[in-house]
Amino acid sequence: MIAALAGGVGAARLLRGLLAVVPPEDVTAIVNVGDDMVLHGLRISPDLDTVTYTLAGAVNPETGWGLVGETWQAMDALARYGGQTWFRLGDRDLATHLYRTQRLAEGAGLAAVTAEIASAWGLGLRMLPATEDRLETRVDVVGEGELSFQEYFVGRRHAVPAKAVRYDGDSAARPGPGVLDAVASAELVVVCPSNPVLSIGPILAVPGVRDAVEARRADAVAVSPIVAGAAIKGPADRLLVELGHEASVVGVARLYAPLAATLVIDTADEALAGAVEAEGMRAVVAPSIMHGPDEAAALARVVLSA
Amino acid sequence: MIAALAGGVGAARLLRGLLAVVPPEDVTAIVNVGDDMVLHGLRISPDLDTVTYTLAGAVNPETGWGLVGETWQAMDALARYGGQTWFRLGDRDLATHLYRTQRLAEGAGLAAVTAEIASAWGLGLRMLPATEDRLETRVDVVGEGELSFQEYFVGRRHAVPAKAVRYDGDSAARPGPGVLDAVASAELVVVCPSNPVLSIGPILAVPGVRDAVEARRADAVAVSPIVAGAAIKGPADRLLVELGHEASVVGVARLYAPLAATLVIDTADEALAGAVEAEGMRAVVAPSIMHGPDEAAALARVVLSA
Repeated sequence: MIAALAGGVGAARLLRGLLAVVPPEDVTAIVNVGDDMVLHGLRISPDLDTVTYTLAGAVNPETGWGLVGETWQAMDALARYGGQTWFRLGDRDLATHLYRTQRLAEGAGLAAVTAEIASAWGLGLRMLPATEDRLETRVDVVGEGELSFQEYFVGRRHAVPAKAVRYDGDSAARPGPGVLDAVASAELVVVCPSNPVLSIGPILAVPGVRDAVEARRADAVAVSPIVAGAAIKGPADRLLVELGHEASVVGVARLYAPLAATLVIDTADEALAGAVEAEGMRAVVAPSIMHGPDEAAALARVVLSA
Repeated sequence: MIAALAGGVGAARLLRGLLAVVPPEDVTAIVNVGDDMVLHGLRISPDLDTVTYTLAGAVNPETGWGLVGETWQAMDALARYGGQTWFRLGDRDLATHLYRTQRLAEGAGLAAVTAEIASAWGLGLRMLPATEDRLETRVDVVGEGELSFQEYFVGRRHAVPAKAVRYDGDSAARPGPGVLDAVASAELVVVCPSNPVLSIGPILAVPGVRDAVEARRADAVAVSPIVAGAAIKGPADRLLVELGHEASVVGVARLYAPLAATLVIDTADEALAGAVEAEGMRAVVAPSIMHGPDEAAALARVVLSA
């Protein structure tokens, strides 16, 4: 059994690689919900959906999120009203949010609904929301104050400087059903190549999860989301610097050393392997940019053998 | 100024006729919200939308509701999840519900949101929800118990026998902003050819509205939704009988005599004019089936001159 802490696009790609080399029933993805929001009354879980759509082979390959071949009738019509169209919801994607919202209103938990959605897409892995409770990633932006994750990420296209990030609700949130067990019983814990602050951070902020992961440090492997000083996708590099960290595999190692014994770094960062190890993590050097399924599977094999 | 009590399809057609012969700013539609519901977390107001889409010339002419040229990507995708697809929401129609839900969540009232939606469609009339408070038409079905309006109307295709109808919330509901003023100040009050129990009934059930309409009885004209003993659309005929009324213009006259001095009945019912008048309503005989805009405008002229 593998337990993988997962954000969105990068995590989804590594999970796809893992599923290419191990049976799906051996994989549990513990997915960030700090980006979740209510918009138009709908419960939207972007990372859960990105992982689902990616593993189902239905993701839009150009964006890494949303559905391939999507149509936009609802958003186009919403524009007529001057409605909130900054967060683009495709017509077929909307169905996921309609279903989730309806089921939650009926009293189902997010974990159960997530399992239903994954099953409908024919996925064999277990997908667990990090928590079923409210946990909202809030980004304190210079000159603007606190924004929700999506206001920062989509609304501002993460092009504004942040000075702090917190996870609202983190003191009261409880780990989602199965989360602590999955971490405790896994043979291997994987920290996927997701934004350490915006994607992995909210998972670890759920009381009990960080402790559970740290207890498995010896069996945990993280994959650096930073390659050659830059994020493969998104604002991780700039955000790390803004928050006082270093946008390098060494900076990642400083953050992840308490969590995982091993850090997979890209061949582009081979020269920093020694500096990573000086931070207390074993460095495994391998190609880590997943352009396609083959590279994802190869990286998964590296993680499994690390 | 004309104040029209309106349900869905039949009312929308008469309103279209009225707008063809009087300036839109002279028309206020007071629209039933007893069919409103929350589905998928979305606030759906079927009658408000049917009136809006019809007056905007955007309604699906085959069904009388929904948008012409609609697409169904979201519903088709929802079917994958086994979601609730019995109430068909087209992709563009969804935008209306997304917008309404978001605005209500932001604290706007339903009347204000309705005005925004009407304005976005370029409509010049005033559209007022009968109430902004919760008022739910509930149909007690033989052998099943109480159903929501939409469960009865769409879910069971109104093909099950009813034994009672009530309007849940009616003791606490307050008239929507502008409703009582519109009735009190109108030169003419029109009771549109909508279902007396399921469409007009919930409007009158809002405390204060029935009294306000009755006070204007002399200046009020109703159009019978029953022609030759049958409803033009929907279950009004059967439902009237099930609830102990008569499915004829005479039965309608018995229900509406306290509300309006005049009842417009179809030429097919000319022989019943005397019986209508025996119930205390003046009968005006005219063609009342609105196949198209011309007939709607002609019927509107009849109403105006009645």
